Amino acid sequence: MKVLITGGAGFLGQLLATRLLDRGFLINKIGVAEPLSELILFDLIPANDFGDPRVRVITGNISDLSTIQQLLSKEVTSIFHLAAIVSGQAEEDFDLGMSINLDASRHLLDVCRSLGHVPKVVFTSSVAVYGGVLPELVLDSTALNPKSSYGAQKAMAELLLNDYSRKGYVDGRVLRLPTITVRPGKPNQAASSFVSGIIREPLNGMASICPVQSSLRIWVSSPDRAVESFIHGHDLPIEEIANNRTINLPGVSVTVNEMMSALEEVSGKEVVDLITVKPIEIIERIVKSWPGAWDDTRAKKLGFKGDAHFVEIVQNYISAHLHSFTK
Amino acid sequence: MKVLITGGAGFLGQLLATRLLDRGFLINKIGVAEPLSELILFDLIPANDFGDPRVRVITGNISDLSTIQQLLSKEVTSIFHLAAIVSGQAEEDFDLGMSINLDASRHLLDVCRSLGHVPKVVFTSSVAVYGGVLPELVLDSTALNPKSSYGAQKAMAELLLNDYSRKGYVDGRVLRLPTITVRPGKPNQAASSFVSGIIREPLNGMASICPVQSSLRIWVSSPDRAVESFIHGHDLPIEEIANNRTINLPGVSVTVNEMMSALEEVSGKEVVDLITVKPIEIIERIVKSWPGAWDDTRAKKLGFKGDAHFVEIVQNYISAHLHSFTK
Repeated sequence: MKVLITGGAGFLGQLLATRLLDRGFLINKIGVAEPLSELILFDLIPANDFGDPRVRVITGNISDLSTIQQLLSKEVTSIFHLAAIVSGQAEEDFDLGMSINLDASRHLLDVCRSLGHVPKVVFTSSVAVYGGVLPELVLDSTALNPKSSYGAQKAMAELLLNDYSRKGYVDGRVLRLPTITVRPGKPNQAASSFVSGIIREPLNGMASICPVQSSLRIWVSSPDRAVESFIHGHDLPIEEIANNRTINLPGVSVTVNEMMSALEEVSGKEVVDLITVKPIEIIERIVKSWPGAWDDTRAKKLGFKGDAHFVEIVQNYISAHLHSFTK
Repeated sequence: MKVLITGGAGFLGQLLATRLLDRGFLINKIGVAEPLSELILFDLIPANDFGDPRVRVITGNISDLSTIQQLLSKEVTSIFHLAAIVSGQAEEDFDLGMSINLDASRHLLDVCRSLGHVPKVVFTSSVAVYGGVLPELVLDSTALNPKSSYGAQKAMAELLLNDYSRKGYVDGRVLRLPTITVRPGKPNQAASSFVSGIIREPLNGMASICPVQSSLRIWVSSPDRAVESFIHGHDLPIEEIANNRTINLPGVSVTVNEMMSALEEVSGKEVVDLITVKPIEIIERIVKSWPGAWDDTRAKKLGFKGDAHFVEIVQNYISAHLHSFTK
């Protein structure tokens, strides 16, 4: 089985790659576990191939139709489409966001359609599709009203995935992600970048700015749980989600204050003291428009798993990325 | 004030044109009634100009970007974007639907954006954006889950209108229409074409097929009320809808049985006997996915007006289009 990850050099793409390589199989169209023979990691920059002979690293711009045409063939029967322009950047560069978040997704689907082999396509969407006046707990039945271009583009791509699936062009599965934390590495241009930054930077002894009021409630997931959900969403028998292929993934609802308390509990007061709350209007406006919690009953019934609580997320981050760290 | 109607040769486009010409003004951006100096009716086929010197008839294909570039200028400060591929046709010809219902809408918005004059854009959407498992009464807060390509394309265009408005590129107003009945003239390729046909054809002494079970509930509006709503939606001060520019317009909820009873009440049993109920799977599947009623409280609070009941809709059709008709 040949598998493609777009955005394969990104943090989640790389994490997914390691999990897929470890596992060595995916459930194919006819419900059978099929060995992973090739894993294509596609991105603008070269992905890490982990020295694994099954990995093929390809670089290119996904907004280019001919690139996608070369990338895909009937042998590629599973696609994890993670490539995206993040929220802050899509807000700043409208055309770039449209080009990658909407047009590239459509090209990918169109090439699949022209090949005619109906691959599984796992597409990652986001809390950002919601916005405006929201109930305290967002339901599966709650209307989308995105208040960022990123959210609007993701919502349009969701509609594409669903309609191309309904038409039988692809077998799409749309997974709406909570904000992922704790991401290792550097801050990025996501409006939500601070949700990792306020944990990661203090743990590295660095100061960190929290650009939203600390009472703000955020719906979060660890990277590990998210990536497990990508694989579970891929493997799920389609009968279980045929009427609605869009799934709000499990998460944990925490305020920034609660995040800071969890960090203090795990790492002490001197670490938390490295955080300064200093609201930045453009970031706060976007992040405030997202739901602080959604109902994940359906996802859990479908077998998706969430984190237990935020303290565990911090502890797992520390043990995975800061082995030498001691309180 | 120069005004553009796309789909200007269509039934609703022509009806809107006559109303605008009669009225002679629209409320402009700064809230002032401004005389209509030019009304551009754009469509694939030449629109009727009603012998009015203010009308300019232009033909062309709206899917062509350069055509839209020629059509628009900074002087065109109000656009009624009605051009669309109807539901049945969009289901049959996926690419044509995408090209007109999505791409052309985006081109129109992009040209407005490049001109930089932030025109008012009234966009007509549809019941078809809803679908799947729906509550008996759809609320403004109910999630979209379109089960037709037409519905998916309209939903994507709604998101575009909202995001281009939020970014300040246009002043968009999205009006979701009930199924319009009674349309004069001939059947079209809308899945809902029969909703007019089962009234219009029998009144003309012709047999008519109802392709859905007669217990099916439909959310309808007369053409007159719809066109009044286009004008009202255009004129509405933007402060009143800034947080959500998408409005579910008033309608009347009727079953096909109730429609037939109303027709009988107005025109007698021999007229209704011309209708044969004979479900056609592809039409029934699409029309059944649409809501039978939605909550129009918000629209009514905003001053949009609906029909009183279906009998009135039939009576108004008769007096407008069948003056000589007597029971």
